[in-house]
Amino acid sequence: MLTKAYAAQSPTSALAPHTIDRREPGLHDVAIEILFCGVCHSDLHTVRGEWPGVLYPSVVGHEIVGRVTAVGSEVSKVGIGSLVGVGCIVDSCQTCAACARDLEQYCENGFIGTYNGSSLGGTVNTYGGYSTAIVVDEHFVLKIAHEEKDLAAVAPLLCAGITTWSPLRHWNVGPGKKVGVVGIGGLGHMGIKLAHALGAHVVAFTTSPSKGENALALGADEVVVSTDEEQMRSHAASFDFILNTVAASHDLDAFMSLLALDGTMTVVGVPASPHPSPSVAPFIFKRRALAGSVIGGIAETQEMLDFCAEHGITADIETIAMQDIEKAFARMVKSDVKYRFVIDMATLNAD
Amino acid sequence: MLTKAYAAQSPTSALAPHTIDRREPGLHDVAIEILFCGVCHSDLHTVRGEWPGVLYPSVVGHEIVGRVTAVGSEVSKVGIGSLVGVGCIVDSCQTCAACARDLEQYCENGFIGTYNGSSLGGTVNTYGGYSTAIVVDEHFVLKIAHEEKDLAAVAPLLCAGITTWSPLRHWNVGPGKKVGVVGIGGLGHMGIKLAHALGAHVVAFTTSPSKGENALALGADEVVVSTDEEQMRSHAASFDFILNTVAASHDLDAFMSLLALDGTMTVVGVPASPHPSPSVAPFIFKRRALAGSVIGGIAETQEMLDFCAEHGITADIETIAMQDIEKAFARMVKSDVKYRFVIDMATLNAD
Repeated sequence: MLTKAYAAQSPTSALAPHTIDRREPGLHDVAIEILFCGVCHSDLHTVRGEWPGVLYPSVVGHEIVGRVTAVGSEVSKVGIGSLVGVGCIVDSCQTCAACARDLEQYCENGFIGTYNGSSLGGTVNTYGGYSTAIVVDEHFVLKIAHEEKDLAAVAPLLCAGITTWSPLRHWNVGPGKKVGVVGIGGLGHMGIKLAHALGAHVVAFTTSPSKGENALALGADEVVVSTDEEQMRSHAASFDFILNTVAASHDLDAFMSLLALDGTMTVVGVPASPHPSPSVAPFIFKRRALAGSVIGGIAETQEMLDFCAEHGITADIETIAMQDIEKAFARMVKSDVKYRFVIDMATLNAD
Repeated sequence: MLTKAYAAQSPTSALAPHTIDRREPGLHDVAIEILFCGVCHSDLHTVRGEWPGVLYPSVVGHEIVGRVTAVGSEVSKVGIGSLVGVGCIVDSCQTCAACARDLEQYCENGFIGTYNGSSLGGTVNTYGGYSTAIVVDEHFVLKIAHEEKDLAAVAPLLCAGITTWSPLRHWNVGPGKKVGVVGIGGLGHMGIKLAHALGAHVVAFTTSPSKGENALALGADEVVVSTDEEQMRSHAASFDFILNTVAASHDLDAFMSLLALDGTMTVVGVPASPHPSPSVAPFIFKRRALAGSVIGGIAETQEMLDFCAEHGITADIETIAMQDIEKAFARMVKSDVKYRFVIDMATLNAD
């Protein structure tokens, strides 16, 4: 099935129209008309070849929402016309210990990414959501219970949402817990909304005092300017959990020292250059931990989507035309977006 | 009570005879004749002033075993003649949340160390076990169920033993778990013995191939030379837990990558210069954690001592005279000891 897309032909070429071939739906496949696709930092790292193993042409996008147009004869999860989503994973072995625990993101044989999937163990490259249609095995298709008018703002839940939800849930964030969210961007703004909705006391950390009001509006109970040592000291050894969404290299010690006994700080971004080496003493003297987490499994993504539909949670977005993607990338690099760009795929169809 | 001791008078002076004053036992105090005291790396760091805040004269030693010579009228835990131990802690607030959980080592108001205790919140400096007697609140006195003939080899359990026991227990090491112990020294040799006795599959890591046979004799199921990349690769992503006892700055990535999904590596030593900054990717892609742990609480120290008595576990030691302490320090720095020096305090009495 020939499908319109926007592709990078090399690390240095701008995204431009390109035609890709989608497979005919198999017995277990769902064919989806893509209506909206969120713009993730990973998309930019990939098309620019900043991560190893990128194959070109590269069609990125893994915050996909749309409508089912066809289903294989064995598909039971969704029907034609259903609103659905596709996140970062379109395949995994489904037999290893991690997959058996619904943790496809940690598949021992490597999950297949929604784009550039060959880099993660696939034999054929995969093309993502900057396109008008996609065909995905039903196991990796998510049901969307939100109203259709909210669909564009649901798209970022498929990556930014689950990337923050999974660690918040894994480390038992909820009522009675004091939780920090470091960075108020695409990921952080979802972290604040989700931690708040889960019932925690949420403290947002930012280097930009101007972001304070916005963080409170998102659901933070308090905002701390992380460059203000006095503010930081007043929260020493008090956090049960800190979700650190900042990928840029930064001083981890300042946040580790805010964890209470047995507290954990979890990072979800890989910095281009290493963080300064964290001091060991703060780990030892309060039995603190530094951990990592990547996206989330299919079952917990569905759980997150259902939770968000129930609590009226979507991402804060700015909708753009496919043709404006390079401008959006440039603004995203400057953090000039509140908080996620989402591409309206009708603009690609009209191209 | 004037008491014989060996003290450093300055960071550059050798340990030498010195007389200290011990308090008369109060209502809740236990007076102990010290029979043996283990020699810990911390002792050397302290007397040489390598850690901040050392007060001189400095009398170190926190692996103390001996016999009760007097008890206050309110003491119920032990009686005159009992064999007892004193570890790294001789006081804590006993009212904070950590103390209420029997985690005096994480006392929110700072525990009082057995030596140089003023650096940890005390108002009067404390003198440790390189002396013939000590007076300690009964809460911080441990009962020893080992036979008296094993007493010297019990001493290192009070620091090296509990420092490894506490994280092994906290991270649920036991049957069915694959556990690594990095470093085969005073701490590591206890970590191997304890993890083995707890029923785990134990892999010892060393940079010295010559230590391999010894590690197997201590209870390791396998030995891996950590500089052998092929050996290391064969254990990739397979460990539930790694106890890292190496304080010297070293590459943590090599061990982090050996952890399975949700695995934790816990460090118990503070390096003089920072470890190379650990890569974030290994944390993220298997939800691994790096954590720290310091010694252990009084209740878990008693649990460990009782477990060791039941399983016939003691440290492997070399007994020395008090007068040979500087020679022992010099050999300890070269790791030329299997695996702990223990001072026979009868030699100080005879001085």
